[in-house]
Amino acid sequence: MEEKEISQAVIRRMPRYYRYLGDLLDEGVERISSNDLSSRMNVTASQIRQDLNNFGGFGQQGYGYNVKFLYEEIGKILGLNTTHNVIVIGAGHLGQALANYVKFEKLGFVITALFDVDEKLIGQSVRGIPILALAELPGYVKSHRVDIATLTMPKSEAASIANELVDLGVHAIWNFAHVDLELVDRDTVIENVHLADSLMQLSYNTVKHTKEKGAAEEPQSGR
Amino acid sequence: MEEKEISQAVIRRMPRYYRYLGDLLDEGVERISSNDLSSRMNVTASQIRQDLNNFGGFGQQGYGYNVKFLYEEIGKILGLNTTHNVIVIGAGHLGQALANYVKFEKLGFVITALFDVDEKLIGQSVRGIPILALAELPGYVKSHRVDIATLTMPKSEAASIANELVDLGVHAIWNFAHVDLELVDRDTVIENVHLADSLMQLSYNTVKHTKEKGAAEEPQSGR
Repeated sequence: MEEKEISQAVIRRMPRYYRYLGDLLDEGVERISSNDLSSRMNVTASQIRQDLNNFGGFGQQGYGYNVKFLYEEIGKILGLNTTHNVIVIGAGHLGQALANYVKFEKLGFVITALFDVDEKLIGQSVRGIPILALAELPGYVKSHRVDIATLTMPKSEAASIANELVDLGVHAIWNFAHVDLELVDRDTVIENVHLADSLMQLSYNTVKHTKEKGAAEEPQSGR
Repeated sequence: MEEKEISQAVIRRMPRYYRYLGDLLDEGVERISSNDLSSRMNVTASQIRQDLNNFGGFGQQGYGYNVKFLYEEIGKILGLNTTHNVIVIGAGHLGQALANYVKFEKLGFVITALFDVDEKLIGQSVRGIPILALAELPGYVKSHRVDIATLTMPKSEAASIANELVDLGVHAIWNFAHVDLELVDRDTVIENVHLADSLMQLSYNTVKHTKEKGAAEEPQSGR
Protein backbone atom coordinates (compact mmCIF):
# COMPACT_ATOMS: atom_id res chain seq x y z
CA MET A 1 0.00 0.00 0.00
CA GLU A 2 1.28 3.43 -0.95
CA GLU A 3 1.68 5.51 2.22
CA LYS A 4 2.14 9.23 2.02
CA GLU A 5 4.36 11.05 4.45
CA ILE A 6 2.24 12.27 7.36
CA SER A 7 3.36 15.45 9.11
CA GLN A 8 4.52 15.32 12.71
CA ALA A 9 1.88 17.96 13.50
CA VAL A 10 -0.82 15.44 12.58
CA ILE A 11 0.94 12.68 14.54
CA ARG A 12 1.15 14.93 17.58
CA ARG A 13 -2.64 15.27 17.50
CA MET A 14 -3.41 11.56 17.17
CA PRO A 15 -2.78 10.60 20.84
CA ARG A 16 -5.25 13.32 21.78
CA TYR A 17 -7.93 11.79 19.51
CA TYR A 18 -7.15 8.43 21.06
CA ARG A 19 -7.58 9.88 24.55
CA TYR A 20 -10.92 11.56 23.76
CA LEU A 21 -12.26 8.47 22.00
CA GLY A 22 -11.24 6.35 24.99
CA ASP A 23 -13.25 8.69 27.25
CA LEU A 24 -16.25 8.41 24.91
CA LEU A 25 -15.97 4.62 25.01
CA ASP A 26 -15.87 4.74 28.82
CA GLU A 27 -19.07 6.83 28.70
CA GLY A 28 -20.72 4.23 26.48
CA VAL A 29 -20.97 6.49 23.42
CA GLU A 30 -21.14 4.35 20.26
CA ARG A 31 -21.24 6.92 17.46
CA ILE A 32 -20.16 10.54 17.25
CA SER A 33 -20.39 13.12 14.48
CA SER A 34 -17.31 15.10 13.56
CA ASN A 35 -19.21 18.20 14.75
CA ASP A 36 -19.80 16.74 18.22
CA LEU A 37 -16.23 15.47 18.44
CA SER A 38 -15.10 18.90 17.27
CA SER A 39 -16.90 20.85 20.00
CA ARG A 40 -15.73 18.36 22.60
CA MET A 41 -12.11 18.57 21.53
CA ASN A 42 -12.17 22.28 20.78
CA VAL A 43 -10.83 21.86 17.24
CA THR A 44 -12.71 22.45 13.99
CA ALA A 45 -14.66 19.60 12.39
CA SER A 46 -12.74 20.21 9.21
CA GLN A 47 -9.45 19.73 11.06
CA ILE A 48 -10.72 16.39 12.37
CA ARG A 49 -11.79 15.24 8.91
CA GLN A 50 -8.48 16.34 7.41
CA ASP A 51 -6.43 14.65 10.12
CA LEU A 52 -8.29 11.37 9.81
CA ASN A 53 -8.22 11.50 6.01
CA ASN A 54 -4.45 11.10 6.28
CA PHE A 55 -5.16 7.54 7.34
CA GLY A 56 -8.01 6.87 4.97
CA GLY A 57 -10.98 8.54 6.63
CA PHE A 58 -12.92 6.11 8.89
CA GLY A 59 -16.16 8.13 8.70
CA GLN A 60 -19.29 7.44 6.75
CA GLN A 61 -20.89 10.55 5.29
CA GLY A 62 -23.90 11.45 7.47
CA TYR A 63 -23.32 8.65 9.97
CA GLY A 64 -20.43 10.05 11.95
CA TYR A 65 -17.71 7.89 13.43
CA ASN A 66 -18.04 4.52 15.11
CA VAL A 67 -16.25 5.32 18.36
CA LYS A 68 -14.91 1.83 19.11
CA PHE A 69 -13.71 1.28 15.54
CA LEU A 70 -12.02 4.66 15.33
CA TYR A 71 -10.44 4.17 18.77
CA GLU A 72 -9.02 0.83 17.71
CA GLU A 73 -7.84 2.07 14.32
CA ILE A 74 -6.04 5.05 15.83
CA GLY A 75 -4.57 2.66 18.41
CA LYS A 76 -3.17 0.58 15.54
CA ILE A 77 -1.79 3.68 13.81
CA LEU A 78 -0.01 4.60 17.04
CA GLY A 79 1.40 1.10 17.40
CA LEU A 80 -0.71 0.33 20.48
CA ASN A 81 -1.93 -3.03 19.16
CA THR A 82 1.38 -4.53 20.21
CA THR A 83 3.47 -4.58 23.38
CA HIS A 84 6.58 -2.42 23.66
CA ASN A 85 9.27 -3.40 26.13
CA VAL A 86 10.70 -0.32 27.78
CA ILE A 87 13.79 0.10 29.94
CA VAL A 88 14.55 3.15 32.06
CA ILE A 89 18.12 4.39 32.48
CA GLY A 90 18.28 6.36 35.69
CA ALA A 91 16.30 5.03 38.65
CA GLY A 92 16.03 8.33 40.51
CA HIS A 93 12.73 9.97 41.36
CA LEU A 94 11.63 10.53 37.78
CA GLY A 95 12.65 7.03 36.67
CA GLN A 96 10.75 5.53 39.58
CA ALA A 97 7.75 7.74 38.91
CA LEU A 98 7.62 6.48 35.32
CA ALA A 99 7.98 2.86 36.50
CA ASN A 100 5.04 3.41 38.84
CA TYR A 101 2.82 4.88 36.15
CA VAL A 102 0.46 1.93 35.45
CA LYS A 103 -1.22 3.90 32.67
CA PHE A 104 1.73 3.18 30.37
CA GLU A 105 1.31 -0.55 30.84
CA LYS A 106 -2.37 -0.33 29.93
CA LEU A 107 -1.29 1.27 26.66
CA GLY A 108 1.11 -1.59 25.97
CA PHE A 109 4.34 0.03 27.18
CA VAL A 110 5.78 -2.46 29.66
CA ILE A 111 8.73 -1.30 31.73
CA THR A 112 10.92 -4.36 32.23
CA ALA A 113 13.96 -2.97 34.04
CA LEU A 114 15.56 0.17 35.45
CA PHE A 115 19.30 0.83 35.45
CA ASP A 116 21.39 3.02 37.71
CA VAL A 117 24.94 3.50 38.96
CA ASP A 118 23.85 4.16 42.57
CA GLU A 119 24.79 1.17 44.75
CA LYS A 120 21.96 2.02 47.16
CA LEU A 121 19.38 1.58 44.38
CA ILE A 122 20.85 -1.45 42.58
CA GLY A 123 19.11 -4.64 43.67
CA GLN A 124 15.96 -2.85 44.76
CA SER A 125 12.77 -2.93 42.73
CA VAL A 126 9.86 -0.65 41.86
CA ARG A 127 6.45 -2.30 41.54
CA GLY A 128 8.30 -5.57 40.97
CA ILE A 129 10.52 -4.07 38.27
CA PRO A 130 14.20 -4.66 39.12
CA ILE A 131 16.80 -1.90 39.37
CA LEU A 132 19.97 -3.27 37.76
CA ALA A 133 23.53 -1.96 37.61
CA LEU A 134 24.21 0.19 34.56
CA ALA A 135 27.17 -2.11 33.83
CA GLU A 136 24.65 -4.87 33.13
CA LEU A 137 22.97 -2.88 30.36
CA PRO A 138 24.83 -4.45 27.38
CA GLY A 139 24.21 -8.00 28.61
CA TYR A 140 20.56 -7.20 29.34
CA VAL A 141 19.89 -5.71 25.92
CA LYS A 142 21.51 -8.73 24.22
CA SER A 143 19.36 -11.23 26.12
CA HIS A 144 16.03 -9.33 26.25
CA ARG A 145 13.91 -7.58 23.66
CA VAL A 146 14.15 -3.84 24.31
CA ASP A 147 11.97 -1.62 22.12
CA ILE A 148 12.31 1.73 23.85
CA ALA A 149 14.93 3.14 26.22
CA THR A 150 13.94 5.99 28.51
CA LEU A 151 16.68 8.35 29.65
CA THR A 152 16.20 10.09 32.98
CA MET A 153 19.85 10.46 33.95
CA PRO A 154 21.77 13.77 34.06
CA LYS A 155 22.33 15.68 30.85
CA SER A 156 26.11 15.14 31.03
CA GLU A 157 25.75 11.38 30.49
CA ALA A 158 22.71 11.29 28.20
CA ALA A 159 24.51 11.51 24.86
CA SER A 160 27.06 8.79 25.63
CA ILE A 161 24.38 6.39 26.93
CA ALA A 162 22.21 7.16 23.90
CA ASN A 163 25.10 6.25 21.61
CA GLU A 164 25.75 3.07 23.58
CA LEU A 165 22.08 2.12 23.25
CA VAL A 166 22.14 2.70 19.51
CA ASP A 167 25.26 0.52 19.22
CA LEU A 168 23.41 -2.16 21.18
CA GLY A 169 20.55 -1.99 18.67
CA VAL A 170 17.99 0.05 20.61
CA HIS A 171 16.55 2.52 18.12
CA ALA A 172 13.85 4.36 20.05
CA ILE A 173 14.76 6.76 22.83
CA TRP A 174 12.41 8.64 25.13
CA ASN A 175 14.64 11.38 26.47
CA PHE A 176 13.95 13.34 29.66
CA ALA A 177 17.53 14.63 30.06
CA HIS A 178 17.78 18.40 29.63
CA VAL A 179 19.50 18.15 26.24
CA ASP A 180 18.33 17.53 22.67
CA LEU A 181 19.37 14.15 21.34
CA GLU A 182 18.25 14.78 17.80
CA LEU A 183 21.42 13.86 16.00
CA VAL A 184 22.61 10.62 17.50
CA ASP A 185 21.87 8.42 14.53
CA ARG A 186 19.68 8.49 11.47
CA ASP A 187 18.22 5.12 12.30
CA THR A 188 17.12 6.16 15.76
CA VAL A 189 13.82 7.73 16.70
CA ILE A 190 14.01 10.19 19.56
CA GLU A 191 11.25 11.86 21.51
CA ASN A 192 12.50 14.62 23.78
CA VAL A 193 10.44 15.60 26.83
CA HIS A 194 11.74 18.86 28.20
CA LEU A 195 9.82 19.52 31.40
CA ALA A 196 11.70 22.76 32.07
CA ASP A 197 10.82 24.04 28.58
CA SER A 198 7.16 23.37 29.27
CA LEU A 199 7.39 25.26 32.56
CA MET A 200 9.06 28.21 30.79
CA GLN A 201 6.28 28.29 28.22
CA LEU A 202 3.73 28.42 31.03
CA SER A 203 5.75 31.16 32.67
CA TYR A 204 5.83 33.19 29.43
CA ASN A 205 2.08 32.89 28.99
CA THR A 206 1.45 33.79 32.62
CA VAL A 207 3.62 36.89 32.49
CA LYS A 208 2.06 37.93 29.18
CA HIS A 209 -1.42 37.36 30.55
CA THR A 210 -0.71 39.37 33.70
CA LYS A 211 0.64 42.21 31.55
CA GLU A 212 -2.43 42.24 29.31
CA LYS A 213 -4.74 42.14 32.28
CA GLY A 214 -2.79 44.94 33.94
CA ALA A 215 -3.02 46.98 30.74
CA ALA A 216 -6.75 46.35 30.42
CA GLU A 217 -7.37 47.37 34.02
CA GLU A 218 -5.23 50.49 33.78
CA PRO A 219 -7.32 53.66 33.85
CA GLN A 220 -7.37 55.28 30.41
CA SER A 221 -4.99 58.20 30.27
CA GLY A 222 -5.09 60.97 27.69
CA ARG A 223 -2.29 59.47 25.55
CA MET B 1 5.07 49.87 23.78
CA GLU B 2 3.02 48.23 21.07
CA GLU B 3 3.38 44.45 21.35
CA LYS B 4 2.26 42.24 18.54
CA GLU B 5 0.74 38.86 19.17
CA ILE B 6 3.48 36.24 19.09
CA SER B 7 2.49 32.76 17.96
CA GLN B 8 2.69 29.84 20.39
CA ALA B 9 4.94 28.08 17.86
CA VAL B 10 7.54 30.82 18.38
CA ILE B 11 7.07 30.68 22.15
CA ARG B 12 7.55 26.93 22.12
CA ARG B 13 10.96 27.44 20.51
CA MET B 14 12.18 30.10 22.93
CA PRO B 15 13.06 27.75 25.84
CA ARG B 16 15.20 25.78 23.40
CA TYR B 17 17.12 28.94 22.44
CA TYR B 18 17.53 29.66 26.14
CA ARG B 19 18.88 26.16 26.73
CA TYR B 20 21.39 26.32 23.88
CA LEU B 21 22.56 29.82 24.84
CA GLY B 22 23.01 28.62 28.43
CA ASP B 23 25.24 25.81 27.14
CA LEU B 24 27.25 28.31 25.06
CA LEU B 25 27.70 30.52 28.13
CA ASP B 26 28.91 27.49 30.11
CA GLU B 27 31.44 26.86 27.34
CA GLY B 28 32.66 30.45 27.58
CA VAL B 29 31.42 31.48 24.12
CA GLU B 30 30.85 35.25 24.01
CA ARG B 31 29.53 35.86 20.51
CA ILE B 32 27.83 33.61 17.98
CA SER B 33 26.66 34.20 14.41
CA SER B 34 23.16 33.15 13.48
CA ASN B 35 24.79 30.66 11.08
CA ASP B 36 26.78 28.97 13.85
CA LEU B 37 23.78 28.97 16.17
CA SER B 38 21.75 27.57 13.31
CA SER B 39 24.01 24.58 12.63
CA ARG B 40 24.27 23.89 16.35
CA MET B 41 20.50 23.96 16.87
CA ASN B 42 19.67 22.27 13.58
CA VAL B 43 17.28 25.04 12.46
CA THR B 44 17.79 27.51 9.64
CA ALA B 45 19.54 30.82 10.30
CA SER B 46 16.55 32.59 8.78
CA GLN B 47 14.23 30.87 11.28
CA ILE B 48 16.44 32.12 14.12
CA ARG B 49 16.43 35.68 12.78
CA GLN B 50 12.68 35.58 12.25
CA ASP B 51 12.01 34.18 15.72
CA LEU B 52 14.18 36.75 17.45
CA ASN B 53 12.79 39.59 15.34
CA ASN B 54 9.47 38.98 17.09
CA PHE B 55 11.10 40.47 20.14
CA GLY B 56 13.03 43.19 18.40
CA GLY B 57 16.05 41.38 17.01
CA PHE B 58 19.05 41.49 19.40
CA GLY B 59 21.63 40.97 16.64
CA GLN B 60 23.95 43.46 15.03
CA GLN B 61 24.38 42.95 11.29
CA GLY B 62 27.73 41.24 10.75
CA TYR B 63 28.55 40.94 14.44
CA GLY B 64 26.36 38.02 15.44
CA TYR B 65 24.72 37.76 18.81
CA ASN B 66 26.18 38.58 22.19
CA VAL B 67 25.49 35.26 23.94
CA LYS B 68 25.12 36.58 27.48
CA PHE B 69 22.88 39.47 26.43
CA LEU B 70 20.67 37.24 24.29
CA TYR B 71 20.49 34.62 27.05
CA GLU B 72 19.39 37.23 29.55
CA GLU B 73 16.90 38.88 27.19
CA ILE B 74 15.25 35.57 26.33
CA GLY B 75 15.21 34.79 30.05
CA LYS B 76 13.29 38.04 30.61
CA ILE B 77 10.88 37.23 27.78
CA LEU B 78 10.20 33.86 29.40
CA GLY B 79 9.65 35.49 32.78
CA LEU B 80 12.79 33.94 34.28
CA ASN B 81 14.04 37.24 35.75
CA THR B 82 11.60 36.76 38.60
CA THR B 83 10.79 33.98 41.07
CA HIS B 84 7.64 31.90 40.62
CA ASN B 85 6.20 30.15 43.63
CA VAL B 86 4.90 26.74 42.65
CA ILE B 87 2.74 24.28 44.56
CA VAL B 88 2.24 20.63 43.59
CA ILE B 89 -1.12 18.93 44.10
CA GLY B 90 -0.51 15.21 44.36
CA ALA B 91 2.58 14.10 46.29
CA GLY B 92 2.89 10.68 44.63
CA HIS B 93 5.96 9.60 42.69
CA LEU B 94 5.64 12.20 39.97
CA GLY B 95 4.92 15.04 42.42
CA GLN B 96 7.93 14.03 44.49
CA ALA B 97 10.09 13.70 41.38
CA LEU B 98 9.17 17.28 40.39
CA ALA B 99 9.87 18.53 43.92
CA ASN B 100 13.31 16.90 43.73
CA TYR B 101 14.18 18.46 40.40
CA VAL B 102 16.61 21.21 41.48
CA LYS B 103 16.87 22.44 37.89
CA PHE B 104 13.47 24.14 38.24
CA GLU B 105 14.67 26.15 41.22
CA LYS B 106 17.72 27.36 39.29
CA LEU B 107 15.31 28.71 36.68
CA GLY B 108 13.33 30.57 39.34
CA PHE B 109 10.49 28.08 39.86
CA VAL B 110 10.47 27.44 43.59
CA ILE B 111 8.26 24.64 44.83
CA THR B 112 6.95 25.75 48.21
CA ALA B 113 4.52 22.96 49.17
CA LEU B 114 3.00 19.68 48.05
CA PHE B 115 -0.57 18.62 48.83
CA ASP B 116 -2.09 15.18 49.08
CA VAL B 117 -5.01 13.31 50.62
CA ASP B 118 -2.87 10.32 51.66
CA GLU B 119 -2.48 10.30 55.47
CA LYS B 120 0.82 8.42 55.13
CA LEU B 121 2.32 11.27 53.08
CA ILE B 122 0.87 14.26 54.95
CA GLY B 123 3.40 15.67 57.41
CA GLN B 124 6.37 14.29 55.49
CA SER B 125 8.63 16.46 53.39
CA VAL B 126 10.61 16.22 50.15
CA ARG B 127 13.94 18.08 50.07
CA GLY B 128 12.59 20.19 52.93
CA ILE B 129 9.34 20.97 51.09
CA PRO B 130 6.36 20.05 53.27
CA ILE B 131 3.57 17.72 52.18
CA LEU B 132 0.34 19.25 53.45
CA ALA B 133 -3.23 17.93 53.61
CA LEU B 134 -5.29 18.85 50.55
CA ALA B 135 -7.87 20.31 52.97
CA GLU B 136 -5.31 22.99 53.85
CA LEU B 137 -5.06 24.19 50.25
CA PRO B 138 -7.53 27.13 50.51
CA GLY B 139 -5.91 28.46 53.67
CA TYR B 140 -2.44 28.04 52.19
CA VAL B 141 -3.27 29.89 48.98
CA LYS B 142 -4.81 32.76 50.95
CA SER B 143 -1.74 33.20 53.15
CA HIS B 144 1.03 32.51 50.61
CA ARG B 145 1.79 33.79 47.14
CA VAL B 146 1.15 30.96 44.69
CA ASP B 147 2.01 31.68 41.06
CA ILE B 148 1.71 28.22 39.52
CA ALA B 149 -0.14 25.08 40.61
CA THR B 150 1.09 21.73 39.30
CA LEU B 151 -1.47 18.93 39.03
CA THR B 152 -0.17 15.38 39.32
CA MET B 153 -3.26 13.77 40.82
CA PRO B 154 -5.55 11.33 39.00
CA LYS B 155 -7.51 12.53 36.02
CA SER B 156 -10.82 12.09 37.82
CA GLU B 157 -10.03 14.86 40.30
CA ALA B 158 -8.02 17.19 38.10
CA ALA B 159 -10.89 19.33 36.76
CA SER B 160 -12.49 19.96 40.15
CA ILE B 161 -9.15 20.90 41.76
CA ALA B 162 -8.34 23.13 38.81
CA ASN B 163 -11.63 24.96 39.27
CA GLU B 164 -11.00 25.29 43.00
CA LEU B 165 -7.57 26.76 42.29
CA VAL B 166 -9.03 29.27 39.86
CA ASP B 167 -11.62 30.30 42.46
CA LEU B 168 -8.78 30.76 44.92
CA GLY B 169 -7.05 33.07 42.45
CA VAL B 170 -4.34 30.77 41.04
CA HIS B 171 -4.31 31.43 37.31
CA ALA B 172 -1.47 29.28 36.00
CA ILE B 173 -1.76 25.50 35.95
CA TRP B 174 0.86 22.97 34.92
CA ASN B 175 -1.19 19.89 34.30
CA PHE B 176 0.20 16.34 34.26
CA ALA B 177 -3.18 14.63 34.73
CA HIS B 178 -4.22 12.59 31.69
CA VAL B 179 -6.93 15.07 30.67
CA ASP B 180 -6.99 18.40 28.83
CA LEU B 181 -7.82 21.32 31.07
CA GLU B 182 -8.15 23.86 28.31
CA LEU B 183 -11.52 25.22 29.15
CA VAL B 184 -11.51 25.90 32.86
CA ASP B 185 -11.49 29.64 32.72
CA ARG B 186 -10.53 32.34 30.26
CA ASP B 187 -8.30 34.02 32.80
CA THR B 188 -6.27 30.90 33.44
CA VAL B 189 -3.18 29.79 31.58
CA ILE B 190 -2.79 26.05 31.30
CA GLU B 191 0.14 23.99 30.09
CA ASN B 192 -0.71 20.33 29.62
CA VAL B 193 2.08 17.75 29.80
CA HIS B 194 0.78 14.45 28.47
CA LEU B 195 3.54 11.92 29.01
CA ALA B 196 1.49 9.09 27.52
CA ASP B 197 0.86 11.15 24.36
CA SER B 198 4.59 11.66 23.99
CA LEU B 199 5.18 7.93 24.38
CA MET B 200 2.52 7.20 21.73
CA GLN B 201 4.18 9.60 19.33
CA LEU B 202 7.47 7.81 19.86
CA SER B 203 5.70 4.51 19.32
CA TYR B 204 4.15 5.74 16.05
CA ASN B 205 7.52 6.91 14.74
CA THR B 206 9.20 3.67 15.79
CA VAL B 207 6.61 1.50 14.08
CA LYS B 208 6.74 3.69 10.97
CA HIS B 209 10.53 3.59 10.96
CA THR B 210 10.62 -0.20 11.34
CA LYS B 211 8.14 -0.54 8.47
CA GLU B 212 10.20 1.71 6.18
CA LYS B 213 13.38 -0.12 7.10
CA GLY B 214 11.69 -3.46 6.51
CA ALA B 215 10.44 -2.23 3.14
CA ALA B 216 13.89 -0.93 2.19
CA GLU B 217 15.57 -4.19 3.16
CA GLU B 218 13.03 -6.39 1.38
CA PRO B 219 14.49 -8.09 -1.67
CA GLN B 220 13.15 -6.48 -4.83
CA SER B 221 10.43 -8.60 -6.32
CA GLY B 222 9.08 -8.26 -9.84
CA ARG B 223 5.98 -6.27 -8.73
